[in-house]
Amino acid sequence: MHKKNIIIYGATGSIGDSTLDLIRNNKDNFNVVGLTCNLNISKLTKISNEFDCKNIGIANKELISQNKTVLKDFIVFEGIEEFQNMISNHHVDIIIFAISGSAPLKLLMEISNSGKTIGLANKECIICLGNLFLKNASISSTKIVPLDSEHNALYQLLKNKNIDSINKYTITASGGNFYKYKYSDLINITPEQAVTHPKWKMGKKITIDSSTLMNKGLEIIEACILFNIEPNKINALIHPESIIHGLVEFKDSSMHAFLSQPNMKISISSILFDNNNVNLDNHRLDLGAIKSLNFIDIDNEKFKAIDIAKTSLDHGGLGPAILNYANELMVNLFLNKKILFTDIVKNNKYIMNQFIRDNNNIKNPNINDIIQAFIIIDNYASRLISN
Amino acid sequence: MHKKNIIIYGATGSIGDSTLDLIRNNKDNFNVVGLTCNLNISKLTKISNEFDCKNIGIANKELISQNKTVLKDFIVFEGIEEFQNMISNHHVDIIIFAISGSAPLKLLMEISNSGKTIGLANKECIICLGNLFLKNASISSTKIVPLDSEHNALYQLLKNKNIDSINKYTITASGGNFYKYKYSDLINITPEQAVTHPKWKMGKKITIDSSTLMNKGLEIIEACILFNIEPNKINALIHPESIIHGLVEFKDSSMHAFLSQPNMKISISSILFDNNNVNLDNHRLDLGAIKSLNFIDIDNEKFKAIDIAKTSLDHGGLGPAILNYANELMVNLFLNKKILFTDIVKNNKYIMNQFIRDNNNIKNPNINDIIQAFIIIDNYASRLISN
Repeated sequence: MHKKNIIIYGATGSIGDSTLDLIRNNKDNFNVVGLTCNLNISKLTKISNEFDCKNIGIANKELISQNKTVLKDFIVFEGIEEFQNMISNHHVDIIIFAISGSAPLKLLMEISNSGKTIGLANKECIICLGNLFLKNASISSTKIVPLDSEHNALYQLLKNKNIDSINKYTITASGGNFYKYKYSDLINITPEQAVTHPKWKMGKKITIDSSTLMNKGLEIIEACILFNIEPNKINALIHPESIIHGLVEFKDSSMHAFLSQPNMKISISSILFDNNNVNLDNHRLDLGAIKSLNFIDIDNEKFKAIDIAKTSLDHGGLGPAILNYANELMVNLFLNKKILFTDIVKNNKYIMNQFIRDNNNIKNPNINDIIQAFIIIDNYASRLISN
Repeated sequence: MHKKNIIIYGATGSIGDSTLDLIRNNKDNFNVVGLTCNLNISKLTKISNEFDCKNIGIANKELISQNKTVLKDFIVFEGIEEFQNMISNHHVDIIIFAISGSAPLKLLMEISNSGKTIGLANKECIICLGNLFLKNASISSTKIVPLDSEHNALYQLLKNKNIDSINKYTITASGGNFYKYKYSDLINITPEQAVTHPKWKMGKKITIDSSTLMNKGLEIIEACILFNIEPNKINALIHPESIIHGLVEFKDSSMHAFLSQPNMKISISSILFDNNNVNLDNHRLDLGAIKSLNFIDIDNEKFKAIDIAKTSLDHGGLGPAILNYANELMVNLFLNKKILFTDIVKNNKYIMNQFIRDNNNIKNPNINDIIQAFIIIDNYASRLISN
């Protein structure tokens, strides 16, 4: 059998861990032909040795010269701008793309026409690049498999389905820390309160996005782009158990739901193995033991993130990219105690609307247009806190 | 567009009502070319007139001579033994088979090689005929679409799926009236208590089967036959809301669930319309309003029906038919206060095991073998209460 050759961009994070664990248990099926990290060179070299991978990429170039000795047995791709060469130099079947944030915008754009299968765990880039990325992928038969649980759920539910018969899409939200709070209590939430997720240990940014529901807003944008969904046909629903990740409703009012333990391995296995055909016995769901799955409508008066996300899609063009970038800035300002918790989403809306009013919203922006827009947003943001 | 020609066997019951209601709203797509009833001639002639259907069948022959005047404008098929001619005389695309019980065993067997699409709402016949029926259907390209909600759920979830990657099947059970009772309280349940379902108005037999969980046991048998499932790969789960009707678990531990309002129209629409493509706006599910879906494992010590059903599948041959028939007799005896509520399942097991021990369990029984077995069971049952 032909072994599948795999590159993991961002191999030292949790997605990398999960991917390598799946490969570890199925070594006959895979070759690891490329691994990258940002800073964690010791972990990168350790896993590269384990998986006998010669090609490694390190985003932080300064660290490369400081670690010449440990790197001497590897072919090193220096800086994110060289990462794309890891594909062209080798036969690659699957790319796991797990570098977070908007830093790898260009890299993702470059590999969008690689014709490979890309497992994508980067919301920001999809939101910024939008149709540009998908169009490239489609022309070059690059296959995109979203890896975060909600989009992977929709991806799996939509396989072999007649899209025309779908009436509505739903993704679920854990609800974050504060969905039961009154608005008057939301105002006083401190960064210390906001960075602890009730259920999962996650990064600060995503934990706060989860509480403001901006995370869900951005996921709705991502879903609309990935699956070509009209914004009025998708919604989010709070589901504290996080067992059902996505649902599709057909015209006949029947629904299909995708359920799994909240574990990335299940999503990742959908790109590594065909037809859900790998045994992941440790992750069985026992609904009798779980007992109850609960659902709470999002209070869109209290949490305006979903509405604002949909507005950004209505604006089109740079709308979603601006909203995403404004949110990154506002979360930072909140963490630095420059703005209130409730200001995050309020300011996101203000900045997005200001941009759309005062600038040319280019319909099909390229990467330079996006970067130019970010500079304008930086200005808006600094004026906002200097007032 | 070619209109689909439809026959409804058992048109005056609730499945008939739902089917005709769907057709009523989509008259451009369907011709009703045959309708039958058992006794309710006035309803049958009324709907036959409404749908301009000339061919009608009446199971109860005595009533035909008493109603000559009202029947004079119709071509009347007299008795269930003539019902199959309603197909051969006309071009038929879809047969809705909604005659209940084991009475239509021969009719169903005859239409199993019709090459038509059959919407099947008769558990008993499938359980009795088993592979015989499916084998006939397969040879003649007769397409079987199960209409009861659990099997229809599995049918829809399994479309375009790789069966080899499925690890487990689950059907849900409302739990009936008494799933929370202690065994010592089950003993004293009266027929009056047992015939009222907490959620739906149904016939007495099915309401009691729902409480003993024999209904679920029989449904598991049906599912194993219809979808060629090994008995150890399917289970039932109590889900009082009856929103999720079926689930499949893949090897990778992800699950797909089928959700809908508990309304037969949704199942029936899956045979009338392709790809869930008919708008049934009145039946939308609102999970935020439903709030909670609950699941309770069946206590197999207290309710042995599922285990016994699986044993009947292990016996194979006449096993399931015997169990089903024994249960019909025992429910009647309970309704007539001849046996206790808890005796129903206990006696089912006793009778089945006695039959298997003392008789030749023909591996591939034909209809005559089945009818012979029923006579033996009748004897067992009468001896049981005369003791």
